[in-house]
Amino acid sequence: MPRTLPTPLSVGTIAERLGATVRGDPDRLVTAVASLKVARAGDLSFFSDKRHIAALAACEATALIAPADTALPPGVAHIVSAGPHLDFIRLLNELFSDKPLFVGLSKHSTYHSTSVLNDVNIADHCGIGEKSYIGAGTTIHSGVQIGANVQIGRDCVIYAGVVVNSGVRIGDRCVIQSGAVIGSDGFGFQPSANGWLKVPQVGGVWIGDDVEIGANTCIDRGAIEDTVIGNGVKIDNLVQIAHNVHIGEHTAIAGCAGIAGSAVIGKRCMIGGAAMIQGHIEICDDVVISGATYVTDSIREKGRYTAVFPYGTHREWLRMAGNLRRSAKSSSKKKDTTES
Amino acid sequence: MPRTLPTPLSVGTIAERLGATVRGDPDRLVTAVASLKVARAGDLSFFSDKRHIAALAACEATALIAPADTALPPGVAHIVSAGPHLDFIRLLNELFSDKPLFVGLSKHSTYHSTSVLNDVNIADHCGIGEKSYIGAGTTIHSGVQIGANVQIGRDCVIYAGVVVNSGVRIGDRCVIQSGAVIGSDGFGFQPSANGWLKVPQVGGVWIGDDVEIGANTCIDRGAIEDTVIGNGVKIDNLVQIAHNVHIGEHTAIAGCAGIAGSAVIGKRCMIGGAAMIQGHIEICDDVVISGATYVTDSIREKGRYTAVFPYGTHREWLRMAGNLRRSAKSSSKKKDTTES
Amino acid sequence: MPRTLPTPLSVGTIAERLGATVRGDPDRLVTAVASLKVARAGDLSFFSDKRHIAALAACEATALIAPADTALPPGVAHIVSAGPHLDFIRLLNELFSDKPLFVGLSKHSTYHSTSVLNDVNIADHCGIGEKSYIGAGTTIHSGVQIGANVQIGRDCVIYAGVVVNSGVRIGDRCVIQSGAVIGSDGFGFQPSANGWLKVPQVGGVWIGDDVEIGANTCIDRGAIEDTVIGNGVKIDNLVQIAHNVHIGEHTAIAGCAGIAGSAVIGKRCMIGGAAMIQGHIEICDDVVISGATYVTDSIREKGRYTAVFPYGTHREWLRMAGNLRRSAKSSSKKKDTTES
Repeated sequence: MPRTLPTPLSVGTIAERLGATVRGDPDRLVTAVASLKVARAGDLSFFSDKRHIAALAACEATALIAPADTALPPGVAHIVSAGPHLDFIRLLNELFSDKPLFVGLSKHSTYHSTSVLNDVNIADHCGIGEKSYIGAGTTIHSGVQIGANVQIGRDCVIYAGVVVNSGVRIGDRCVIQSGAVIGSDGFGFQPSANGWLKVPQVGGVWIGDDVEIGANTCIDRGAIEDTVIGNGVKIDNLVQIAHNVHIGEHTAIAGCAGIAGSAVIGKRCMIGGAAMIQGHIEICDDVVISGATYVTDSIREKGRYTAVFPYGTHREWLRMAGNLRRSAKSSSKKKDTTES
Repeated sequence: MPRTLPTPLSVGTIAERLGATVRGDPDRLVTAVASLKVARAGDLSFFSDKRHIAALAACEATALIAPADTALPPGVAHIVSAGPHLDFIRLLNELFSDKPLFVGLSKHSTYHSTSVLNDVNIADHCGIGEKSYIGAGTTIHSGVQIGANVQIGRDCVIYAGVVVNSGVRIGDRCVIQSGAVIGSDGFGFQPSANGWLKVPQVGGVWIGDDVEIGANTCIDRGAIEDTVIGNGVKIDNLVQIAHNVHIGEHTAIAGCAGIAGSAVIGKRCMIGGAAMIQGHIEICDDVVISGATYVTDSIREKGRYTAVFPYGTHREWLRMAGNLRRSAKSSSKKKDTTES
Repeated sequence: MPRTLPTPLSVGTIAERLGATVRGDPDRLVTAVASLKVARAGDLSFFSDKRHIAALAACEATALIAPADTALPPGVAHIVSAGPHLDFIRLLNELFSDKPLFVGLSKHSTYHSTSVLNDVNIADHCGIGEKSYIGAGTTIHSGVQIGANVQIGRDCVIYAGVVVNSGVRIGDRCVIQSGAVIGSDGFGFQPSANGWLKVPQVGGVWIGDDVEIGANTCIDRGAIEDTVIGNGVKIDNLVQIAHNVHIGEHTAIAGCAGIAGSAVIGKRCMIGGAAMIQGHIEICDDVVISGATYVTDSIREKGRYTAVFPYGTHREWLRMAGNLRRSAKSSSKKKDTTES
């Protein structure tokens, strides 16, 4: 199911937009974009990765954006590009730019009289709290709840159902996916004679520019100072960022990962899906954590770190797990013998 | 705490509804349903699993739905059934059928003038976007936000607080639990000189018939083509389904699981809780993935697959983990010796 | 970024509020609170943990709450306390007590005529269902959806975007963070000739007093009887609590953890982040489960339990995993030899 263009475009027009040359018929019409494996007559796609050479050979697209030295199947128009994927992204951004479907402030939302909302688009069923400020060009979809003393920068997109609690600061050009919660209380409790005593969470959340936050992701407010998400950080869905965490610039965190309280993550790190970072540890810049890996100590050298039990058939696993258990028992016996 | 019936029913009436015969007094009144272990006088329960034979012997329910060859405790009325659990489910469906507490379109919700909403029930504080279509008999609870160009089939139930973003297609008889987000952007970024460059996510989500989606679960839209959830798929809470994923018909996915981008899961698979499926791999039909198992490669034979570090006391674990570490060091030395 | 006080206070005034004595100048003004490492002139902090002795020596705070026998850096006023952290918490509670920013029932929310709402504060865009009861002193932030037949006790705080489905009971003084879903259907399906057959989920959720529930956490309703969360239980963000689970009093559950259906957890347990508890098992009182540990059997002795593959560099991990795989193959061969 390729994605239909708002209006059909000729191959020549597309090339012109990209400042590229065409080999083949520039007058053929493109009606949709598609990925290389799926593209058929009428579709535009791109080729940039030699691993997909088999899909290229079988491709029946009308046109492909591809490097100059690529041999395209006969009949496929060639839009010559030194960076086919980036050019394709650029084109998508132009063709499908989400002009907001609503403009100005919906009368079905509520705005505290002290909030500042100039040149902002806000859809229905939103609430904007006391003394909150939202920058020009920012679009807020329906059902978004924003607390008091919130600052949101320019040209952000906040999707439906997001909650931004009081005292959160968000920079420019941020994208926040639906259901994300920013500024929930951190999980801070002290044991007492009457059970757990709640430690008031009075810090905020500081989010830089160009940050993306995934759907149903949670970012807790700091206990005293702020939780900090650096510029350019990208966070996927269902990620937990606990109180007082600091995430360095341009770090990317994949879905279902969790960063426990007061952990400090460096710049340009890549945290795999479902990876877990223990609290109060530090990870230096340029570290890659594999998916589903639990990091229990600070990491001081860049590189890739992993901890995943190798999967096998259930029978193979029973043997692996059994051997591991037996090794523990025999080493325990040895130790006992030595000690006696 | 058994679940009270809307009105008391005689054992005979219940049997009649199920087309079953009664052994014992058909005139005794049942006022609640309960599970076997909990059921007391006044309650109806069922017996279908020989492992619960001890609970059966001690049961003081007024009536039990049970196979003909079951010996019930004295005084418990026996509603004879070849499929006690399915009959119990059928009865629950009749007795507790959620007649919607609201009918028609709430005036506290907003509907784009181009949306099509015939014979639909929509509660308060919902927003329905441009050119969206919702089928007859579908019930939408409060605070649900639905974007533009959304298609939702007949007889669906969408619980409070769900977000369905633009361009999503949902089939008939689907159930979507609260807080689920469908159609969030996939996590697509390309490295560039200025940090991560967002890849526009222009695909949609295609959801078949009879699909259930759990609370706070996220299903991302495809990058170019659609993310696809087949007919009859059941997804539990807090599950992450990334962009371009395909889930085959009747596959069930338990809570906290994650399926990374472009993974293809076969039909009738069962993915355990907190299991993680790596991106760009394929899992064939009829595969069972154990809970908390991380699958890093394609699986081409049906069967059960597992990867879980065996748990023990913290001391046992220290030994197991220590042995594993030492084995790596000694094998490293051996290798070094061999190599030198 | 220390947290500014609503109004500056003298060191003497603060000590007086705590019933404490001051060593040093009681007239110096405190304008903010900060943690020990961050505190500068104008800030108040506390010292209670000998591990932070280096930060204490370098501290330039205006005043510290600290035990009598602590040697503070010169010039730092000493507020003498036998319990510095608890005193600091007490002070924060007084200084930052969230007086609700809204009072009474917003006219932008909807209330079923049969709901009972005396002395309750409800912000905008909320919906309260049929026959629901909310106790005095409870504050409900914006965009909260509450179903029918819900009972919520006194002095609770329910943050923006929470969903409480029908038939849920919540005690007094509970705090529910944004996006949490309480009372979603449990994941109950039976195989049938036409695929999965939904088992109606007709139980409720029973939540005790003084419970905290984290952001985007899900608590499913019971299948027949209630899911039960005991008094004083604290649950972090993005936690999955499946149907029929029982959590004992004062147990704490960290973020991203999951408790599968019908599991019973004892009192005063601590479940680490991302830990997973299998369904239908029992964990006794006073058990600690380490982070990311998957518990597959019942635990009958208190203590700490762990199961985490030790992380290493990716190369180290390849060796560990390889040895584990080889051990399984060789033990398989041995077994085959023995058997032949």
